[in-house]
Amino acid sequence: MGKIICAGLGPGDPDLISVRSDRLIRGARHVAYFRKAGRAGQARAIVDGMLAAGVTEYPMEYPVTTELPFDSPAYNDALAGFYDLWANRLAHLSQFDDVIVLCEGDPFFYGSFMHLHSRLQGHAVVEVVPGITGMAGCWHATGLPITWGDDVMTVLMGTLPEGELVRHMQNADALVVMKTGRNLPRVRRALAASGRLGDAWLVERGTMPGQRVVRLADADETDCPYFAIVLVHGHGRRPEAGGE
Amino acid sequence: MGKIICAGLGPGDPDLISVRSDRLIRGARHVAYFRKAGRAGQARAIVDGMLAAGVTEYPMEYPVTTELPFDSPAYNDALAGFYDLWANRLAHLSQFDDVIVLCEGDPFFYGSFMHLHSRLQGHAVVEVVPGITGMAGCWHATGLPITWGDDVMTVLMGTLPEGELVRHMQNADALVVMKTGRNLPRVRRALAASGRLGDAWLVERGTMPGQRVVRLADADETDCPYFAIVLVHGHGRRPEAGGE
Repeated sequence: MGKIICAGLGPGDPDLISVRSDRLIRGARHVAYFRKAGRAGQARAIVDGMLAAGVTEYPMEYPVTTELPFDSPAYNDALAGFYDLWANRLAHLSQFDDVIVLCEGDPFFYGSFMHLHSRLQGHAVVEVVPGITGMAGCWHATGLPITWGDDVMTVLMGTLPEGELVRHMQNADALVVMKTGRNLPRVRRALAASGRLGDAWLVERGTMPGQRVVRLADADETDCPYFAIVLVHGHGRRPEAGGE
Repeated sequence: MGKIICAGLGPGDPDLISVRSDRLIRGARHVAYFRKAGRAGQARAIVDGMLAAGVTEYPMEYPVTTELPFDSPAYNDALAGFYDLWANRLAHLSQFDDVIVLCEGDPFFYGSFMHLHSRLQGHAVVEVVPGITGMAGCWHATGLPITWGDDVMTVLMGTLPEGELVRHMQNADALVVMKTGRNLPRVRRALAASGRLGDAWLVERGTMPGQRVVRLADADETDCPYFAIVLVHGHGRRPEAGGE
């Protein structure tokens, strides 16, 4: 009787994987990972050169990514069936041996694995190993602390309506905006409306080869990969320094 | 000519240190770490058994912790002098050899090292290695994802005024409240006022021996260590599911 162990991979640099995940990955006989159909997959790319000879790989290919709106019933149905299928497959496999599931960043922070995790409860033994988040890789890429003192930090998805983005951007000190990509023009407008655009950075591939850090105001709107993250650093506002 | 390298230690379990920090710590000839005077120090405790024979240790003991209000001029002056002193000492040391500075969690996420980092610019070669945050260790301790979908997550300090806490708690899906300790009664009142108390967890020593996870509503208000973290999980609210 084996286990399903989700190994957080961290932001991309294999040297930033935890000692525990590193050991699990190198010793794995069965590894599964999500990827877009037709791509090598970012999780698989991170562990390149780390897998043992003879390992069996299980690429879990999303049936849809951006072809359908993420809030459409068709999208939800396709994804639900996909997660059901892989939860069953991994539960079955785990009856015979451990299965290591590779997940970028931290699996419990906006990770895809949680859709398997919830389905596997009661059907398999599941463990999850934390990882350094992708956003942390991005703030380290800027070379500056994201927060200090009593800063309020808010994490937002670029998929939110513009009005909600503006409201949250006005209310927090430090900001992280994920899922930018095609939402970048809206994110940029919201930052401008909340007076934060001048302090915003666009970070791609934080900690990875090809890392890119630019001021968002200087970035080309037509050139934004899905996984780029927008950051606004906090400045350590303290209660006595004015407050709101 | 050496470097000052701040090694993020992660949430507490030595097995969750990154491969890079692990290698730096085991190979270090000079290690520095913050601690409260008279205590062993949490950072030093995490690396117990990892340091090489003959390593030189530099405990950096805070001149004050909670004896003075954190917003008083006396507190600010004492801390500023302390950080100046250690920035000078570490810069001097780094002229001869590498110095590894141990920092719990992620050094760029509310870490003390940033006060040295800002002072060292132009005076020494400084590198920072990310770590898994303490808050991630705490949400893993609950066994549940902290966020999914388009959840908004806000990180708050328990030192904030109650009205600000309430406002932020009403506006976010997932919540992390740090620096609880003596602020816990105020944090609890703010959670109750914002309708979130029933979903709040108090996590102590996430990923460490003695880990404790309790519903905040059931916790004893008089029993809250400074480093306990309060969490409210997001539930994957999506735009079509009602919004605000």
